[in-house]
Amino acid sequence: MSHRVLTGITTTGTLHLGNYVGAIRPAIEASRAPGVESFYFMADFHALIKCDEPDRIARSSRAIAATWLAAGLDPARVTLYRQSDIPEIPELTWLLTCVTAKGQMNRAHAYKAAVDAAVAAGEEPDANVSMGLFSYPVLMAADILMFNAHRVPVGKDQVQHIEMTRDIAQRFNHLFGQGREPFVLPEAQVDAEMELLPGLDGRKMSKSYDNVIPLFDGGSAALKDAVARIVTDSKLPGEPKDPEGQALVTLYDAFAAPEQRAAFRAALRGGLGWGEAKQQLVALIEGQIGPMRARYDELMAHPEQLEAILQAGAARARAIAAPFLKQLRAAVGLRPYTATAATAAAKAGKAALPVFKQYREADGRFYFKLLSAGGELLLQSSGFEQGRDAGQWVARLKREGLAALAAGAPVQRAGAEADIAAALAALQDA
Amino acid sequence: MSHRVLTGITTTGTLHLGNYVGAIRPAIEASRAPGVESFYFMADFHALIKCDEPDRIARSSRAIAATWLAAGLDPARVTLYRQSDIPEIPELTWLLTCVTAKGQMNRAHAYKAAVDAAVAAGEEPDANVSMGLFSYPVLMAADILMFNAHRVPVGKDQVQHIEMTRDIAQRFNHLFGQGREPFVLPEAQVDAEMELLPGLDGRKMSKSYDNVIPLFDGGSAALKDAVARIVTDSKLPGEPKDPEGQALVTLYDAFAAPEQRAAFRAALRGGLGWGEAKQQLVALIEGQIGPMRARYDELMAHPEQLEAILQAGAARARAIAAPFLKQLRAAVGLRPYTATAATAAAKAGKAALPVFKQYREADGRFYFKLLSAGGELLLQSSGFEQGRDAGQWVARLKREGLAALAAGAPVQRAGAEADIAAALAALQDA
Repeated sequence: MSHRVLTGITTTGTLHLGNYVGAIRPAIEASRAPGVESFYFMADFHALIKCDEPDRIARSSRAIAATWLAAGLDPARVTLYRQSDIPEIPELTWLLTCVTAKGQMNRAHAYKAAVDAAVAAGEEPDANVSMGLFSYPVLMAADILMFNAHRVPVGKDQVQHIEMTRDIAQRFNHLFGQGREPFVLPEAQVDAEMELLPGLDGRKMSKSYDNVIPLFDGGSAALKDAVARIVTDSKLPGEPKDPEGQALVTLYDAFAAPEQRAAFRAALRGGLGWGEAKQQLVALIEGQIGPMRARYDELMAHPEQLEAILQAGAARARAIAAPFLKQLRAAVGLRPYTATAATAAAKAGKAALPVFKQYREADGRFYFKLLSAGGELLLQSSGFEQGRDAGQWVARLKREGLAALAAGAPVQRAGAEADIAAALAALQDA
Repeated sequence: MSHRVLTGITTTGTLHLGNYVGAIRPAIEASRAPGVESFYFMADFHALIKCDEPDRIARSSRAIAATWLAAGLDPARVTLYRQSDIPEIPELTWLLTCVTAKGQMNRAHAYKAAVDAAVAAGEEPDANVSMGLFSYPVLMAADILMFNAHRVPVGKDQVQHIEMTRDIAQRFNHLFGQGREPFVLPEAQVDAEMELLPGLDGRKMSKSYDNVIPLFDGGSAALKDAVARIVTDSKLPGEPKDPEGQALVTLYDAFAAPEQRAAFRAALRGGLGWGEAKQQLVALIEGQIGPMRARYDELMAHPEQLEAILQAGAARARAIAAPFLKQLRAAVGLRPYTATAATAAAKAGKAALPVFKQYREADGRFYFKLLSAGGELLLQSSGFEQGRDAGQWVARLKREGLAALAAGAPVQRAGAEADIAAALAALQDA
């Protein structure tokens, strides 16, 4: 298994240039690293904790998915999915809830901060705490453990949640692992200080300061308007200017190659006017953001394209999550009543697998079928004149999975699509 | 919609005659009441809270499902399912978690009892509390609200949980109902004191007193052995006996018609020996339990039969749960990116529905297809010579749902079975 990295994307609010430079661009670069299997998900179950405005939840998820894709996240390379499209995640959340000590949640920073705020305001400690806020570290553990991520890039305030995930995973492994360890213990990857972009007034770019440059919203006109409002000193064109400490220059740096940075500074020292400098900044940013904005607008105008990308990502994610959850369910005792033999196999250190059966019928023809680990019929072949031909299709289905099915394997589907996909994926992994 | 009653069946331990008389028999009688739509489920997600022995979880669920069926629960009449076969339940649990106040869970009796016990033992208050124990009322709310049960038969200790379910439902309705009320507020039905059966020693029959008569385990021999150990007075055969206050007589009463009860008492007063009386009791119980035990043994010997019954129940339950969860997801803002039109329709007071489309192809033939509310292709018909024939199949699929499909509707399945079932169910309900 390659090294798995998992990143949750918050789906509230709209994005500005600071989010792009500080979070989106570096994350997309990281997703291109070799030997890494990346999982990016729209954390919309988490969004429900803080936001009870349905239209905002829906709009924001759509806009943010479009933003990441437009900014270059490659859905063929990374597994991009909506958390809420993976029903295995809330189910795993419950399994983990049963092995999580409440005392551990009592010590979560976010919970304690909410309690402190309430107490300071003279309210009951839990006055403003929903069970969503309180249980959120368990959902986050399920997000991570569902895909056995090795590494989770987080801010410093999230390190505690990764520690909690490790504790929960260890406890599950200990109680139900039977010597094997179903869960990988993830590592928090605390990035060196995020690149912070200054806003129009030189303070950190932030919606709360009302000093942001929008990323895509409002088109190039809005970009131009915002840049025009960047605060500079009052030196006139022709006067030499000190580039250091100017928000305008820091913004330029964030999009410029080293030689461009040097040239820009030299021009300012040589008397370049602020108006002209702002035009150059707009041109620089627009050169990079403009094509992305076109793609963004296209995705927003064609929600069916966006939806298809997310659906494909969900199918890839579930091809991993569904068979893994089946194993975990069996480990805690949630098993089909027919699973006695499978249980014995699992105890012997071998997870129960789906199975292809080949046989000859009274009509003299050769057949095969695919049965789930629980014995449910999933695929039924047509009859072959030659046993060899049946065998070759079986080999191909084992090797290529769904691709072989799509390539016209002569079978009828007898089970649900998701079960068939999960069974073929489990055989490919085995 | 008929009146819905929902009952969770605990899946830990094995059952004795006291469970049969006090719980199983009255519940099965209740399920036969007219005008009632009954939901019975094996509460195996709940079982995980208290039990970390996987084999016991699995064995117990299987034995208890077989017991209820053998005792006469009719799976054609009631919807019988395993909680863990309904992925919609943990997902709804998360939606409800986000609208549940933590303060409310702090006040749950079961949680407070665990805290009191820990404090009395000199431990930290939450020392023995898992998040499963703490969050359990939210899962129970999801169990009930998933099927919009009107009535939930419970013991006195569970009334508080039904109150919590009502509060959670009200809050969800208020925040996301948009004037409609997605959730019915359930009523607790506290049964008149459960019929308590005495055990071998005259105290309440209970495993903790080690005084139980097994229901099926050990066959008729075990029943005979247990009855032989019932404590009586030491009067000899021929001596008149006072039947009142004798455990043996109370046990006899639980299985006897009024005239049998009178005859048994008269015989004891007339000198019937205890040994003979015990033989009559064994014969009486065996006459009722014996045939059930045969069915129980058969189901235990054929787990594939049992599994098929539970799978069929899960399919019925999911035909309700899946389309309802889709509505609830849309209400909180978890919507396909293509759902703008559907959202508008929902706002206008009409839930988005799957749709049949009829059309004519270049080959001159008439076709139809079934699309989900989100626009996903679910069924694709073959070509018809006459448009009328296509229309008749559409009408029949709308009216009869899966039954029309099973009756050979000339269509190919393009979506997952569960989605197809859900879509057809939604159209039947509409």
